[in-house]
Amino acid sequence: MKPVKVGLLGLGTVGTGVVRIVEGHQEDLSSQVGSPIIIERIAVNNLNKIRNIEVDRSKLTEDPWDIIRDPDIDVIIEVMGGVEPTKAYILEALERGKHIVTANKDLMALYGSEILAKAQEKQCDVFYEASVAGGIPIIRTLIEGFSSDRIMKIMGIVNGTTNFILSKMSQEGASYEDVLLEAQQLGYAESDPTADVEGLDAARKMAILGTLGFRTNVELSDVTVRGISAVTKEDITYAKKLGYEMKLLGIADRDPEDDEFSITVQPTMVKNTHPIAAVSGVFNAVYVYGEAVGETMFYGAGAGEMPTATSIVADLVAVIKNLKLGVNGLKAIVPYKPKKLKNDETIAYKNFLLLHVADRAGVLAKITQVFAEYAVSLESVVQSPNANTKDAEIIIVTHNASKASMDKVLKHFEKLDVIQRVKSVYRVEG
Amino acid sequence: MKPVKVGLLGLGTVGTGVVRIVEGHQEDLSSQVGSPIIIERIAVNNLNKIRNIEVDRSKLTEDPWDIIRDPDIDVIIEVMGGVEPTKAYILEALERGKHIVTANKDLMALYGSEILAKAQEKQCDVFYEASVAGGIPIIRTLIEGFSSDRIMKIMGIVNGTTNFILSKMSQEGASYEDVLLEAQQLGYAESDPTADVEGLDAARKMAILGTLGFRTNVELSDVTVRGISAVTKEDITYAKKLGYEMKLLGIADRDPEDDEFSITVQPTMVKNTHPIAAVSGVFNAVYVYGEAVGETMFYGAGAGEMPTATSIVADLVAVIKNLKLGVNGLKAIVPYKPKKLKNDETIAYKNFLLLHVADRAGVLAKITQVFAEYAVSLESVVQSPNANTKDAEIIIVTHNASKASMDKVLKHFEKLDVIQRVKSVYRVEG
Repeated sequence: MKPVKVGLLGLGTVGTGVVRIVEGHQEDLSSQVGSPIIIERIAVNNLNKIRNIEVDRSKLTEDPWDIIRDPDIDVIIEVMGGVEPTKAYILEALERGKHIVTANKDLMALYGSEILAKAQEKQCDVFYEASVAGGIPIIRTLIEGFSSDRIMKIMGIVNGTTNFILSKMSQEGASYEDVLLEAQQLGYAESDPTADVEGLDAARKMAILGTLGFRTNVELSDVTVRGISAVTKEDITYAKKLGYEMKLLGIADRDPEDDEFSITVQPTMVKNTHPIAAVSGVFNAVYVYGEAVGETMFYGAGAGEMPTATSIVADLVAVIKNLKLGVNGLKAIVPYKPKKLKNDETIAYKNFLLLHVADRAGVLAKITQVFAEYAVSLESVVQSPNANTKDAEIIIVTHNASKASMDKVLKHFEKLDVIQRVKSVYRVEG
Repeated sequence: MKPVKVGLLGLGTVGTGVVRIVEGHQEDLSSQVGSPIIIERIAVNNLNKIRNIEVDRSKLTEDPWDIIRDPDIDVIIEVMGGVEPTKAYILEALERGKHIVTANKDLMALYGSEILAKAQEKQCDVFYEASVAGGIPIIRTLIEGFSSDRIMKIMGIVNGTTNFILSKMSQEGASYEDVLLEAQQLGYAESDPTADVEGLDAARKMAILGTLGFRTNVELSDVTVRGISAVTKEDITYAKKLGYEMKLLGIADRDPEDDEFSITVQPTMVKNTHPIAAVSGVFNAVYVYGEAVGETMFYGAGAGEMPTATSIVADLVAVIKNLKLGVNGLKAIVPYKPKKLKNDETIAYKNFLLLHVADRAGVLAKITQVFAEYAVSLESVVQSPNANTKDAEIIIVTHNASKASMDKVLKHFEKLDVIQRVKSVYRVEG
């Protein structure tokens, strides 16, 4: 049967994996789709770069437009990354009726709705399984596996770099700075680690998951973000003592009554009996709570050449099956619910606080009085003298409290003379 | 738009959940498929039974043929269970061009290939996500999510009853008999628990997963089965001491070189650092190792009204989407690889052995000599005197050894006078 011709934009780590799978699994793949799959052309930055995969030089070009404009190409796989000029390539490819498989979380988080609208107009597929959690087929699961359910909560460890760092800090009692350096040496963290450690990468992925889970158009600006660069050894030690693991969690939750939702990325103390607490190292996991299905979790490699390529080529198989059936672009999910964001009054969760206070009688009473004033009830309060100073430390875990109330408590603490310092505040889950 | 009419065979626990979801999520569902979904008729055993859901009596019938023969019905959801006469209903429904969604693992494990062949002939869909691991969309994941990869190993906790029993035995040091009784009282185990505790239910599910994972026709008789009824408190205590959890695991593995595979269900000691070791209670989990994607795991409720109904209605959504596109039956996966089963020489894994031996010098030498004779190498050997008797106990963990060699070792032990009893032998994983 007539082979399907694929254009590949980018031949870095993931692009190399795509070539390996398409060539190495050709027999399995063509058995499934009914025709050979050929990677016809590949756009690279530099034709002369030495690569750790052998590719026919005549397939390479330094100009992606050569591929976009090639009428023989049926499907574009985009693994070059970045927002511009990538977005222009993809929109033009769609304009020309080419289907798209992309791993580009930045592009999908920022311009997903524009790209999907263009795809629908042109009856083209745009699949992006690899953009979130690498090898874990979580996008398919949200679109198809849970199509019948109402997703109430998604919690994701969707950034391997930060999970590696927090896991190491927890396991070895090491400092953030030391582990970051190690992660950089191992190639798990970039030399400029900002996008990972400040939670921006995770936020993009959560915007994508939120859109699919809640069937509404979540924008990146709807996600509140706090990174892990201020997490200390001490915080993690306290977390463990109380039976928690510190994780950079993306949390999307929805109110069952009125569909209001919030999405946030922040270092979170997760009860160690929760399945996501055990996910360590560079692994990713997405926990999904559905009204009917209850608790589920999906675990696997979140990045890397071959896991990410697995998702891309699985998307390619889906595109080609649709191509054979003539149904590309007809199964697209259009978010149909109006967007209703929670506000500070309706966002509520448990909080952990570590306070440095003066070590004298009556301090605890004054502090608990502040919580009472703003109707924040407490799950536990532990006070212990600090051997090194004349201070004491107080650790408080609240029951669910609105963000507005907690902000008032923290504001009040600023003028409370018995509190020397609010050392840490973290969300608590599980 | 014209509503889609569904016939439901069975209104037990899962059938009730299906009605609840189709009615309760009607707006979400019809937004996705583009038309209302109506459960038009329901076959029940007894029209007069009191039910914990309100259904229009005029929809009920005691004769499933009324539904199979109704030309207005587009899709049949089968949740009545059993092999006969259910198989006849399904084949006739397909003959009449109706699409099938079923939760029937027995039927799919025994007659899946016959039913799928008939579906292909009639261009009908047969979806069966709910037949394995309830609410976990593992069948979709194997068919679509990992379509690009070569699955090398599947390990599943696919029976909640036995996982509940083993978890309780492990957590509370309780005996098999006591926990089974508790499981029966809680409704987690049937009054005749044979199908669960002897591993037969898990074997059916593993035959289905093996067929999809290895893309070859696995039959139920290809699965070797051993249940948990002989697992003792003592076995579990030893497992924990050595850092293992006892799980009833379905294990399907494939040789990367020659595609030979084996599938087995047996109580297995799983290293407690393996993600599947932490899956406790009635939860299910399926661990999948793909050549490219590496380690993944999918976790959730394996049974129950709403989780199972979630999977059924997700399948229904998929059928209806295909119906609208006119592509039913065209995406069926036909197992295309020839079946090559491993034999006792090529099946290899680690083993745990607990031996009761005479407590005298030279015993250990005699025993290790037997392993050496059959080329089975040992990972660890621990000997300890038993305070209550004049015996000693020896605990041995082997490296990977072929089943043939292990059988020879055990046969040899029968005539070795220093061994009083081979108390336990278990497969070891992780």
